Amino acid sequence: MPKIVNHEERKEHIAEAVWRVIRKDGLNGVSVRRVADEAGLSLGALRYYFDAQDELLAYSMRLISHRANERIRNLPDTGEPRERIERIIAELLPLDGVRTAEAEVWFAFVGKALSDPAIGALSREVHDELYEGFRSMVDPLVSLKLAKDGIDADRETKRLHALVDGLVLHRIAFPERIRSEELMSIVSLHLDSLLKEPDRR
Amino acid sequence: MPKIVNHEERKEHIAEAVWRVIRKDGLNGVSVRRVADEAGLSLGALRYYFDAQDELLAYSMRLISHRANERIRNLPDTGEPRERIERIIAELLPLDGVRTAEAEVWFAFVGKALSDPAIGALSREVHDELYEGFRSMVDPLVSLKLAKDGIDADRETKRLHALVDGLVLHRIAFPERIRSEELMSIVSLHLDSLLKEPDRR
Repeated sequence: MPKIVNHEERKEHIAEAVWRVIRKDGLNGVSVRRVADEAGLSLGALRYYFDAQDELLAYSMRLISHRANERIRNLPDTGEPRERIERIIAELLPLDGVRTAEAEVWFAFVGKALSDPAIGALSREVHDELYEGFRSMVDPLVSLKLAKDGIDADRETKRLHALVDGLVLHRIAFPERIRSEELMSIVSLHLDSLLKEPDRR
Repeated sequence: MPKIVNHEERKEHIAEAVWRVIRKDGLNGVSVRRVADEAGLSLGALRYYFDAQDELLAYSMRLISHRANERIRNLPDTGEPRERIERIIAELLPLDGVRTAEAEVWFAFVGKALSDPAIGALSREVHDELYEGFRSMVDPLVSLKLAKDGIDADRETKRLHALVDGLVLHRIAFPERIRSEELMSIVSLHLDSLLKEPDRR
């Protein structure tokens, strides 16, 4: 009987090999041949799934946001808006090996975006999705009147998004300088500053 | 008469060539030969100043913080603490070509820190200097009782530092997504959230 291959699984397996190469040697280390080796596949087998390096990189980057979105979709939909926001942000912070790997790969793409317009366009898509994700945290705080009066949702979203990306970057680049537990405690402090007194911790 | 060469100027000229190479091709594009070409020097002339690539990179990175520190030292020492903080942070944001170049080069080093321990150690030094810089903005707000009561200076410094680095990163990687003017307006909003009501804008 022929072996049944789940194509989506196989593509994810390849993308994870791309991640490992990026974490070891940066985006410049990624070549179709190197990824085939890392994934334990022949060049032909890899080319069956990804014709060119661009496709391979695009899929590998989208898989990061896909995985994070999946985890967020599966979070319990209970508790106060503030607790739900904290749970979602926790999925974006490098609090375990999986999320650290995702964050490192994401920053490799962002870094490359500066000098490579194709990577720039791709990573802008994910950046925009993240903005929308943060916006959908800030908006209910405003509409439910939990946030302080006079809040500008766009500016507060950009502030929260920048804070979270800055924390992620500091933790993965300088892990001796900020402890894992501090990340959520700083996010919590930040949410305090957005909320009216009675909704704070 | 022999030409008089100012050695420090010559080194800075070489470091600026390193910056241009990094901005075009990333840190992986930097080689002694490539930098000599970019600086319009012979390999021998460049080697007179920098024996090895490590030294060249170390000097080029330290020059970023040196230049920013110089600008900050030359700022007028007048006005309220809050105004002074805003002036200092403005020197760290990519608000003009010079500061954008510095920020791009800085993030190239931070990105490389993840996979290269030597670059990691070097960029941690600059990261620590930045922490100390932000700390010296937060501390007087606390000691002068301008900040809200109960502020934890270390956590607030880390929050401000992460916010500023996140804003810088978003602006240089996705300039279509956040306008230059928004950077200072978000920083100002953030300072509002740290200060007692009467000291806000």
